[in-house]
Amino acid sequence: MAPPSAVEVSAVSDTSGVTIPNSLNAPVQSNEVNGRRKKTNAAQWGVAAPSNTANFRLKSHDHKSKAKGWDHIMSHEATIRKGNSLKEAAKFLGTPGIISLGGGLPSSEYFPFEELSIKVPKIGHFSEAETRESGVVVTAGKHDLTENKSNFDIATAFNYGQGSGSAQLLRFMTEHTEMVHDPPYEDWRCTMTIGSTSAMDMILRMFTRPGDMILSEEYTFSAFVETARPMDVRVCGIPIDEEGLLPTELDKILTNWDHVARGARKPHLLYTVPTGQNPTGATQSAERRRALYKICQKHDIHILEDEPYYFLQMQPYAGPTQPDVPPPSSHAEFIKSLVPSYLSMDTDGRVIRMDSFSKVIAPGSRIGWITAPAEVVDKYSKHADVSTQNPAGMSQLILFKLLDEHWGHAGYLDWLLHLRIQYTQRRDLILTACAKYLPQEVMHWKPPMAGMFHWMQVDFRKHPAYPARSIEQIEESIFMRVIDHGALVMRGSWFYADADERHDTLFFRATYAAAPGEKIDEGIRRLGEAVREEFGLASTSRVKMGFLGNIALILGALTAGGGITGYVRTGSVPSIAAGCTVGLLYMLGGYRVNNRAAYGVELALLASVILAGSSIPRAIKSGKPLPIGLSVLATFGLWTFGNAYMNRKA
Amino acid sequence: MAPPSAVEVSAVSDTSGVTIPNSLNAPVQSNEVNGRRKKTNAAQWGVAAPSNTANFRLKSHDHKSKAKGWDHIMSHEATIRKGNSLKEAAKFLGTPGIISLGGGLPSSEYFPFEELSIKVPKIGHFSEAETRESGVVVTAGKHDLTENKSNFDIATAFNYGQGSGSAQLLRFMTEHTEMVHDPPYEDWRCTMTIGSTSAMDMILRMFTRPGDMILSEEYTFSAFVETARPMDVRVCGIPIDEEGLLPTELDKILTNWDHVARGARKPHLLYTVPTGQNPTGATQSAERRRALYKICQKHDIHILEDEPYYFLQMQPYAGPTQPDVPPPSSHAEFIKSLVPSYLSMDTDGRVIRMDSFSKVIAPGSRIGWITAPAEVVDKYSKHADVSTQNPAGMSQLILFKLLDEHWGHAGYLDWLLHLRIQYTQRRDLILTACAKYLPQEVMHWKPPMAGMFHWMQVDFRKHPAYPARSIEQIEESIFMRVIDHGALVMRGSWFYADADERHDTLFFRATYAAAPGEKIDEGIRRLGEAVREEFGLASTSRVKMGFLGNIALILGALTAGGGITGYVRTGSVPSIAAGCTVGLLYMLGGYRVNNRAAYGVELALLASVILAGSSIPRAIKSGKPLPIGLSVLATFGLWTFGNAYMNRKA
Repeated sequence: MAPPSAVEVSAVSDTSGVTIPNSLNAPVQSNEVNGRRKKTNAAQWGVAAPSNTANFRLKSHDHKSKAKGWDHIMSHEATIRKGNSLKEAAKFLGTPGIISLGGGLPSSEYFPFEELSIKVPKIGHFSEAETRESGVVVTAGKHDLTENKSNFDIATAFNYGQGSGSAQLLRFMTEHTEMVHDPPYEDWRCTMTIGSTSAMDMILRMFTRPGDMILSEEYTFSAFVETARPMDVRVCGIPIDEEGLLPTELDKILTNWDHVARGARKPHLLYTVPTGQNPTGATQSAERRRALYKICQKHDIHILEDEPYYFLQMQPYAGPTQPDVPPPSSHAEFIKSLVPSYLSMDTDGRVIRMDSFSKVIAPGSRIGWITAPAEVVDKYSKHADVSTQNPAGMSQLILFKLLDEHWGHAGYLDWLLHLRIQYTQRRDLILTACAKYLPQEVMHWKPPMAGMFHWMQVDFRKHPAYPARSIEQIEESIFMRVIDHGALVMRGSWFYADADERHDTLFFRATYAAAPGEKIDEGIRRLGEAVREEFGLASTSRVKMGFLGNIALILGALTAGGGITGYVRTGSVPSIAAGCTVGLLYMLGGYRVNNRAAYGVELALLASVILAGSSIPRAIKSGKPLPIGLSVLATFGLWTFGNAYMNRKA
Repeated sequence: MAPPSAVEVSAVSDTSGVTIPNSLNAPVQSNEVNGRRKKTNAAQWGVAAPSNTANFRLKSHDHKSKAKGWDHIMSHEATIRKGNSLKEAAKFLGTPGIISLGGGLPSSEYFPFEELSIKVPKIGHFSEAETRESGVVVTAGKHDLTENKSNFDIATAFNYGQGSGSAQLLRFMTEHTEMVHDPPYEDWRCTMTIGSTSAMDMILRMFTRPGDMILSEEYTFSAFVETARPMDVRVCGIPIDEEGLLPTELDKILTNWDHVARGARKPHLLYTVPTGQNPTGATQSAERRRALYKICQKHDIHILEDEPYYFLQMQPYAGPTQPDVPPPSSHAEFIKSLVPSYLSMDTDGRVIRMDSFSKVIAPGSRIGWITAPAEVVDKYSKHADVSTQNPAGMSQLILFKLLDEHWGHAGYLDWLLHLRIQYTQRRDLILTACAKYLPQEVMHWKPPMAGMFHWMQVDFRKHPAYPARSIEQIEESIFMRVIDHGALVMRGSWFYADADERHDTLFFRATYAAAPGEKIDEGIRRLGEAVREEFGLASTSRVKMGFLGNIALILGALTAGGGITGYVRTGSVPSIAAGCTVGLLYMLGGYRVNNRAAYGVELALLASVILAGSSIPRAIKSGKPLPIGLSVLATFGLWTFGNAYMNRKA
C-alpha cells in the first residue's frame, strides 16, 4: 500500500488584498503547484467547455496499472445511457473561424450581474472575528476571462456547464486529491457532484438493480438507507466495534451468503464512512482499512468511500487533565497525520471516493467531487448531463475565487488545520460535559477521533422496564424524557442499516458541531438528568427545578396577596405597588424556571432581595405581623434561590 | 378558463444603492405585494427550516376545488419513498428553550465568508453598459438575520436546507406564479428544482415505469428523450404545425392506441414546451392550448408543461419594412400580452409546470421551480431530500438579494420586459438575414414568436441526390457543407421524438440568442451559401471568395517579384521595400479571405490602392515596362477587390 503522498506546500507570506489577475501565469499560493502545473489548453476555460482531469495531475501516473473494469456490475440504465447528444456538436466548434448558431446558450449580455465579491479570511487569520477585521475582498468581474484578468468569470461560470463541472475548479480538486491520496492506479479521474447525497443516488442507479443488498456499518447514515430503499435496494448491516466495520464479520457474512435466506444475490458494493462515521463517530485505523480492502478483493466488492469528515480528524484526546497534544507543524506532517484513505490503497481501482465541501467550507455550495476510474467518472458525468447538470456556477465561481485564486492549496491546508483545532476543542468540551453529568453506571462512550458525532451507549438491561419493554420502547421513553428536559439528541435506531433485523444495543447520537460551547454543556447536563430519572438514579435536579419554579410562583402569590392586604387594611399605595411588583417578579421567575427559560432563578433571587430589603427593616422597626411574615418569605426565598443559583454555577 | 391575473405592480422610483434592511417590515418594491404579504412565521427563515408555500399566496384560493389525484399514476419508487427521517426530528425543535445536539449541521462559525456582494442593474437601467455605470451593489452579511438586517443571510443560506428550497426565495416564486398564472384549483403549491433537466429526471422516476411511452411534439427537446431513454421510457411524437401540437392528431393517436403494436400501455403523460418550443420555436396559441387541455381531460393525460422560454415571448413580427409594434405600457398589459399557460387553465390540477431562471437570469444559478398539486409537490421535495437536496444556497441568496430585496416583483417584470425587447431585436435581425441570404426556392420558415430558436425547413425533394439518398443522408450532407462554410446549425433529426419512426421533413435549427448581431448575419450568409451549393443553385459566392483569395495571393507574388526585379536591375532599395510590403499585404489579405477571417478583402484592396498610388504616377512619368506592368496589376486589383467590397456591403 502506498503511504499518502507527503507534499510540502508552503504558504506565501503576504496575501492581503490580492486578487490574482491570472492564475495561469501569476504565481499561485502553492509553490509546489506553481512549478508543476502543466501548460493548459485555454479552450477548456470557456463556456460549457469539456476538460479532462488527467491533464490536471501534477506528476506522471503512467507507470501504474489500469483500474479493473466496472461494467460487469453496471445497471441496464447506466449501460444504455448515452448522455447529451447536443454537447457532441461542440466538437465542431474547434473549426477555425466557425460561427455557432447551434447551442441554445443565452448570451451573458443578459445576466444581470456585473461583479461578485466575497469577503473571506486572510490566510492564518481564520476566525470570524479576525475575518471581520482583516478579511480580504475577492472580486470576480463579468468578463475577466476575455479581459485576461482571471481564467474564470461571471460570463462563463453563470452560463451552462458540463456535468463534470468547470475545468477551473476541477483542476483544484484533482490536484488536492493527488496531494492527499495519490491513487495507486493509472486512470483515476475526478468529476464534480452536487453533493454526496446526489452522488449516492446516482451511484446506486448506476450499479444496483431492484432486490440488491449493499453492505454497510450496522448503524449507518440514514439518508443512504432512505435513498436506496425506494429503489428496492436494502442495506445489510455488518457488525462494528469502536474502529467501525469488523473485517472478520464482513468475510463471514460474504462467505456464508445465502441468497435465498437473504432474498438477494451476493452483494457487490460496500458503502462506508471510514472516518468519523455517522452516527457512531468511529474511525477505521490504517490496519483496519487494509484488512477490509483485502476482504473486498477476496469477494470482488466495490467500495463507496463516503468521506465528508476526512478533514475533521482531530488531535488525539489527551483526557481532561492532560496538556493538549501539539498540532502538526507543517503541511507534510499534517497530511501524514491523516488516516490513509481507501483511495490511497486502491491498487485495483475498486473504490469510488466521495469528497464534499459541506463540512469544511459550507453545505450551501452543493459541490463535492468523486474520484474513481475513468470508466466510472465518464458514466457519472454523462448521467449528470441528463439529470442534475453541472453544480451551480455561482457556487463554482465562489469556491474557485476562494480556493484557487485566494488561498491556493497551502492556504486551504492551513484552513483545514484550523478546523482540526476548532473541532478538537469542541470534542474535548463535550467529553468534559459527559464526564461531569452523565451517569456512568448506565452510559458508556469512546472519545471520537474524527467527525461531528459523539455516540453514547445506554445499558438498557439496567432499565426498570427491561425486559418487559423492547429496546426500541425503552429508547423511545428515554428520548421523550430528554425532550421533556429540554434537549434533543438522535435515537440510535434511526440509523439501523436494516430496521427488520434484531438489535441488542441502544445508543444516542449527540453532535458537538453545531451548538455554542455553553449550550453543549447544558444540553449534556439535561441529558444526564433525564437518563438518571429514567433509570431511577440519584440526583433528581429536574424535580428540584420544577419544585423551585413552583416555590417562586407561591411566593409571588403570597407577596402580591400581602401587598393587597396591606392596601386594604391601611390604604397604603406603596404597599400594593411594592407587593405587586415583587410578586410579578417571582411569578415571572417561576414561569421561566418551569419553562426552562434563561434567568428564572435569577429573577426569583432578585425578587427575594427586593422583598428582604423592603420588609426586614420595616419588620424590625414596626414589629407588625405583615412585615414579619414578608420577611420570613424573603429569607426563605433568599435561601432557596441563592442556593439554587450557587449550585448551578458550581 | 380563467384569464391570467392582471395585477398592477408599480416600481418605486428610487432604488439606488438600497439594501432593504428587512423585507418583512420594510416596503418591498411591489406595492401590491407589500400590502398583501401575510404575517409570516419567523421560524421559517431559519437554517433548514420547513415552510409551506400555501402561506405565501397573497389571496385566498379556498373557493376553488381541490386537484384530482395523481396516486394512480405514481411509480412504486415514489409511492414507497418516505423522505429524510432525520428532518422529522426537527418537529421537536419547536419545544421552547430546547437545546439541539441533534442535527449534524456545521456551525456557521466555520463558513469562511463574512460578506457576499453583487453589482446588479438598477431598475430601468438594465443594459451591460448601464450596469457598469449605474449598477447597485447589494450586500448580504453573515449574520444579517440575527442582526435584524434582512431575513436571509450567509449563515442561513450557506448551511443545509430543505429539498423544497428556502422559504425566503420560495415566497417570491409563489407570489410571481400567483400574479402571472393564478392557478384555478385550491391546493397548488411550489417547490424549487435544481433546474428543469433535473425536474424531468425526477418527474419521470415518479410517474413512469419501464416500457412506458410519453407523448410529445414530434420534434422535441433532445435532453428529455435522452433523460427518459435509459429508464426504458420512449417518446411518442405527435404531429405539429407552426402552432405546435395538433389536438386532432393527439386525440386520434390516443383513441386508436394499440398497446401491442406500440409495445407500450396507453400513455398518461404529455411533455410539452408550449412557448417557443425547442427546437421548432413554435408557440401554441390560447385556443390551441384550450383544445389540447380538453383532449388531455378526455383521455386523462397529465401534462408536464416545461416553460423556460415563457418570458421570451416577443413583440409581434412586423416585417422588415414596418415600424416596430410599441411594447406593453404597464405590467398588467405585459402580463395580459402573454399567452395563457396550461397552469392558468388547469381546473383539474393535472399540470406540473416547470419554471426556470436559466433563460431569464442565468443558467449558472441551477434554480427553478415547479408548480403542481400539493400531493405532487410534497413527493417531489421528499425525493429531493434524498437525492439532489436543496438548490445551492449560494445561488438562493444571490437570487433573493436581487429579486426579492433589490428589484421586487415590479423590477423583475421590468427586467423581463427589457428581455422581451432585446430578444425581439435579435429575432428581427435573424429574419432580416434569412430574407437576404437564404435560397427561398428550397428553404422556408415562420417568424418565431417566442424563445431562442429559428426553425428552417429545407425542401429535400429538390436536392439533386433525392430520392437516391435518405432524408438523414441529405441532412448530413448539408450539415457538413455548412460546417465547411464556417457555420454551425443544429440538425433537425437530433430532435426526433422517436428516431425509429419514419420522417418526411428536413429542418435545421439556428439560435439568435447567443452570437452578437454581426455574427448572426454572417452565419446565416454562410448557411445560405452552403445550401445553394448543395442544391446547385445560383450565386456561388463561396467559389468567388476562393477565387478572390487566390487572385490576391498571385498579385502578392507578382508585386513582390516586381519589387525584387527592380532592385536587381537598378539596385533601388525603395523598389524592393515597397514591392515586398505591398506583396505581403496582398498575401495576408488572400490568406485571410481563404480562411474566412475578417478584413481579407479590405487588406487586398488597401494593397491595390498603395500599389496604384506608387506605380501609376511613375508609369506615366517614366513610361517604363515595370511601372506600367505594376500599374496594370494595381488597376486589376482595384477593380476586383473594390467590386467585392462594394458587393458585400450591399
